Amino acid sequence: MNKSILVLGAGGHATVVVDILRQLNFNIIGLVAAEPVKHQPVFAGIACYTSDDDVLAFNINDVLLVNAIGSLPGQDVRFKVHQKFKKLGYRFMTLVAPTAVVSLYAELSEGVQVMPGAIINANSRIGEGSIINTGAIVEHDCTIGAHNHLAPGAKLSGGVSTGDYVHIATGANVIQGMSIGEHTIVGAGATVTKNLDSNKTLYVAKPFLV
Amino acid sequence: MNKSILVLGAGGHATVVVDILRQLNFNIIGLVAAEPVKHQPVFAGIACYTSDDDVLAFNINDVLLVNAIGSLPGQDVRFKVHQKFKKLGYRFMTLVAPTAVVSLYAELSEGVQVMPGAIINANSRIGEGSIINTGAIVEHDCTIGAHNHLAPGAKLSGGVSTGDYVHIATGANVIQGMSIGEHTIVGAGATVTKNLDSNKTLYVAKPFLV
Amino acid sequence: MNKSILVLGAGGHATVVVDILRQLNFNIIGLVAAEPVKHQPVFAGIACYTSDDDVLAFNINDVLLVNAIGSLPGQDVRFKVHQKFKKLGYRFMTLVAPTAVVSLYAELSEGVQVMPGAIINANSRIGEGSIINTGAIVEHDCTIGAHNHLAPGAKLSGGVSTGDYVHIATGANVIQGMSIGEHTIVGAGATVTKNLDSNKTLYVAKPFLV
Repeated sequence: MNKSILVLGAGGHATVVVDILRQLNFNIIGLVAAEPVKHQPVFAGIACYTSDDDVLAFNINDVLLVNAIGSLPGQDVRFKVHQKFKKLGYRFMTLVAPTAVVSLYAELSEGVQVMPGAIINANSRIGEGSIINTGAIVEHDCTIGAHNHLAPGAKLSGGVSTGDYVHIATGANVIQGMSIGEHTIVGAGATVTKNLDSNKTLYVAKPFLV
Repeated sequence: MNKSILVLGAGGHATVVVDILRQLNFNIIGLVAAEPVKHQPVFAGIACYTSDDDVLAFNINDVLLVNAIGSLPGQDVRFKVHQKFKKLGYRFMTLVAPTAVVSLYAELSEGVQVMPGAIINANSRIGEGSIINTGAIVEHDCTIGAHNHLAPGAKLSGGVSTGDYVHIATGANVIQGMSIGEHTIVGAGATVTKNLDSNKTLYVAKPFLV
Repeated sequence: MNKSILVLGAGGHATVVVDILRQLNFNIIGLVAAEPVKHQPVFAGIACYTSDDDVLAFNINDVLLVNAIGSLPGQDVRFKVHQKFKKLGYRFMTLVAPTAVVSLYAELSEGVQVMPGAIINANSRIGEGSIINTGAIVEHDCTIGAHNHLAPGAKLSGGVSTGDYVHIATGANVIQGMSIGEHTIVGAGATVTKNLDSNKTLYVAKPFLV
């Protein structure tokens, strides 16, 4: 826990990330964000840097990066930042909220973020840079690709596998044993009961408004 | 933790509320319910009062009220009781279950109830008297109005805002950034992907039975 | 905590069950599975038995059984194993994950399994052999029959009752007060807003793929 932490991003996801880092008593030495950082208590007292180039002033052995850029379908900023700094030799912190439940028999790759109340059961593996967001569930024997985002309250039953860059949106469900191809999006509230190819989007059946 | 607690209501929601109060070692001096209180272990040993007027026998400085009346769409008993006793100068306790996860950077107004396993992330604000029920999720930067009920397992992604008297029913989902007008109901299992006006009801697409 | 534990089954559900037993420092003396047990760290060091008859070598007073056979709609292996060994005089352990939240005022019958992060509120009763799986919610005053499976992330609001052998699949929702007949299946992601007869299946409205 001795390394200094540089947080990349200062939006909504970053507020939860910094909140967790503070709970874990990490030493946050800066926020890096192109846009001006909104004043808010969770960021109080943290130095702000405005350019990715500012990261380069820190030796790769002295800092750990935390990618706090959010992940929404169709956006690739989060992934590109990860890849850029990895190539330069920087390391990304694997972050687990103190209220998350991660089995001792699960494996988290570099840069994975397990947010408050999320659960990952035995024999599941989470690929590099993926977010298992607030209250999401990954049952036993799942294999999650790199740079996935399981949004808040997403639920994966046992033995699910996903390719890279998969987005499983808020409250979506995946039954046991399903396979989901890379770059596929499971829409908010949608339920996967058949394997999904790559580059698809599954939408929940339309609700009706009265 | 020294004040005495008067619990208003003795139905199902009250059982969970009293369970939490007992876990937190609060001093419950009475249940107030017009109908006879069903004998059950969770209420054992607590004095029962049968009329709202019985509350008036307690000095406003000596007791905290807990509004344990449940909240269902179309019912306003819970809100009216809150407003009646507020006008008389009584204070309502803000209650957080020990298993709930509330960010230090979230704000809970008077009388908010955060039930078992519910999660509220950084920069979210919950309005007066609202219930964040069992296992519900409120992501970062949400602004929840007064007298809302987020039912068990409801999930709000980041930056959602709701008006007053909104009901988000069991297992409903709301994607990031949505705005929901006052008195609107999001039905059980429904998923909000567009802003909703006031006084509307959104129903989940009908399931089919075989 | 002194009795020795025999675990029946060695599939995916068993990995989570054994993970929990290890967290609770129980003495696991064997896995019983007809098929060869896959080598994996969670099972390391546990003796393997290949036949139900091997159980009979253990005195009924010396062991507790844990039924770690999974439960999927249309499969009855799990129930039959329970009944077979009960008739022979063996006892099944009631298992609660350390991260589950079970009210002191809830009742769990013999052989109930409450998995990581699941929540059971006051005055709910869970019938013999039922699984309340990862992150599932059982609100107050529910009565769950024997041999039910509430799959990961299933959510039951207050006062729900179910018959025996009910399956509520991944992420399904049930509103307050519903009654669900025996052997009925609530499909993944489906939402119950009307009482359901026995031997029915409720499917979520079809999502659409683009």
